[in-house]
Amino acid sequence: MQLAMVQDTVMPLEDLPEAYLDRGMFFADGVYEVLRSYEGKLFALDPHMQRFAQSLEAIDIRGIDVDEVRRRVIDTYAQSGIAEAKVYFHATRGRSSRDMIDTPGLKPSFFMTITELEDYSQEKEQGISVCGHPDWRWKKCHIKSLNLLANVLARRDAQRRGCSEAILFNEEEGLITEGSGSSFFAVLTDARGGLTLRTSPLIANILPSVTRTYVLRAANDVGLSVVEDALTCAEAAQARELFIAMTTHDIVPVVRFEGTRIGDGRPGRLTRQLMRKFRQFVG
Amino acid sequence: MQLAMVQDTVMPLEDLPEAYLDRGMFFADGVYEVLRSYEGKLFALDPHMQRFAQSLEAIDIRGIDVDEVRRRVIDTYAQSGIAEAKVYFHATRGRSSRDMIDTPGLKPSFFMTITELEDYSQEKEQGISVCGHPDWRWKKCHIKSLNLLANVLARRDAQRRGCSEAILFNEEEGLITEGSGSSFFAVLTDARGGLTLRTSPLIANILPSVTRTYVLRAANDVGLSVVEDALTCAEAAQARELFIAMTTHDIVPVVRFEGTRIGDGRPGRLTRQLMRKFRQFVG
Repeated sequence: MQLAMVQDTVMPLEDLPEAYLDRGMFFADGVYEVLRSYEGKLFALDPHMQRFAQSLEAIDIRGIDVDEVRRRVIDTYAQSGIAEAKVYFHATRGRSSRDMIDTPGLKPSFFMTITELEDYSQEKEQGISVCGHPDWRWKKCHIKSLNLLANVLARRDAQRRGCSEAILFNEEEGLITEGSGSSFFAVLTDARGGLTLRTSPLIANILPSVTRTYVLRAANDVGLSVVEDALTCAEAAQARELFIAMTTHDIVPVVRFEGTRIGDGRPGRLTRQLMRKFRQFVG
Repeated sequence: MQLAMVQDTVMPLEDLPEAYLDRGMFFADGVYEVLRSYEGKLFALDPHMQRFAQSLEAIDIRGIDVDEVRRRVIDTYAQSGIAEAKVYFHATRGRSSRDMIDTPGLKPSFFMTITELEDYSQEKEQGISVCGHPDWRWKKCHIKSLNLLANVLARRDAQRRGCSEAILFNEEEGLITEGSGSSFFAVLTDARGGLTLRTSPLIANILPSVTRTYVLRAANDVGLSVVEDALTCAEAAQARELFIAMTTHDIVPVVRFEGTRIGDGRPGRLTRQLMRKFRQFVG
């Protein structure tokens, strides 16, 4: 008789709840999105939905109606009544026994949670410490997939070293790609003494971050020129200012990189200016 | 109120079955093993358990008693009464809400299935077609983790091209690492006209396959010299014989590589000799 075991309980395979037989679990065979609300309003829903559609397409998951997912997000968020919410959803290729090749006609799984955003105001006010970590991720990180073990290992290593985020760099060239769960930005002095904002170009193996788009728009609005060119950890440690950006907490100042104090050890002037600008987008 | 949604059903987050909140699903944050039985006897249980322990250690999942898992495998397999079984089990870092950093003291999840092995005798008798695919996997493939999306995409691409397995090669050097779910072997004529067995060395980004160990032992037993050195797809296509090896079906002859017929298009003489030798190990 075919059997299954969950924790220490054995059961006939046919009694196993189908949630356990998901290709998302067996193979990371799925894609996801995270968005948030500010003061009762979902932020940047359309670019997130657009990216979700691209992710589904990229790994060829069919049968998810993205417009229907959009409606589910809007309706369920309204139902939650949470002012500052984190909306997470994923779709996997579906549920079936563990075979690398999916059975034809498999119906994709959809899953969503809408939860209270954790308070991150202290980190935003005081800034965070980050450290470098080799980028061990797969080669298709422009797809927002569940294939995240390398991100987890980097973040756990950062935590062990007293840091809030791991900044990933490729081992071949030592160039920073992005954070384990964020985009990475540096304010640098250019050859003529002016200030520029540096971040990795999207041609590298990095995620087309929605928040990144708004950061670049904010930079443009405050007259800060942007250079999309990867930088090394050594360059980052010598930057005037550093910050990371991610959906859940938008811009978060970085005040230490690999133990080196950035600027005077407090969130930089331009970083704070960009944070204020960003708030105007979400208002 | 915090909410969850599974397929099209909304529920309060607290009513969500905990199976849905697993770090294996959210982050591929887990490791697994597959073993099999031959005629009612589990094969190579100890090396599989040893590798499982190494995988757990490599991603720092604590709190899984590997000896206890070994007992579970033996007892549950006996209970199943299946002669030719596939035993799959995984452990993840545990169940909690989706945050990249795990909460301290999280209890790992354990999951196992024992199922009938699918019949693969036709493929073993007639040989299979394979094709090359860029190796998009992460950089720690010596860990047998759930981070398998690149493997799935390669295998699906192979299937679309009428092939049973994708042979992965790194894009920088064009060197073959391994199959999407198998080790890869070539029988080549050396400079002195002798025959050697070539396969990637374990120093590359490849899994220390248990079956590979037995294949190398079989080669030794039949007097075939082994060269652990990666080969290119072009070299593979010109090989005398090719085969793959994996836990579920041990040695499977390859008779076409990227559409090129290997040898006379039938399983090679040495491949068949190694298959017979392998059977002696499991008897």
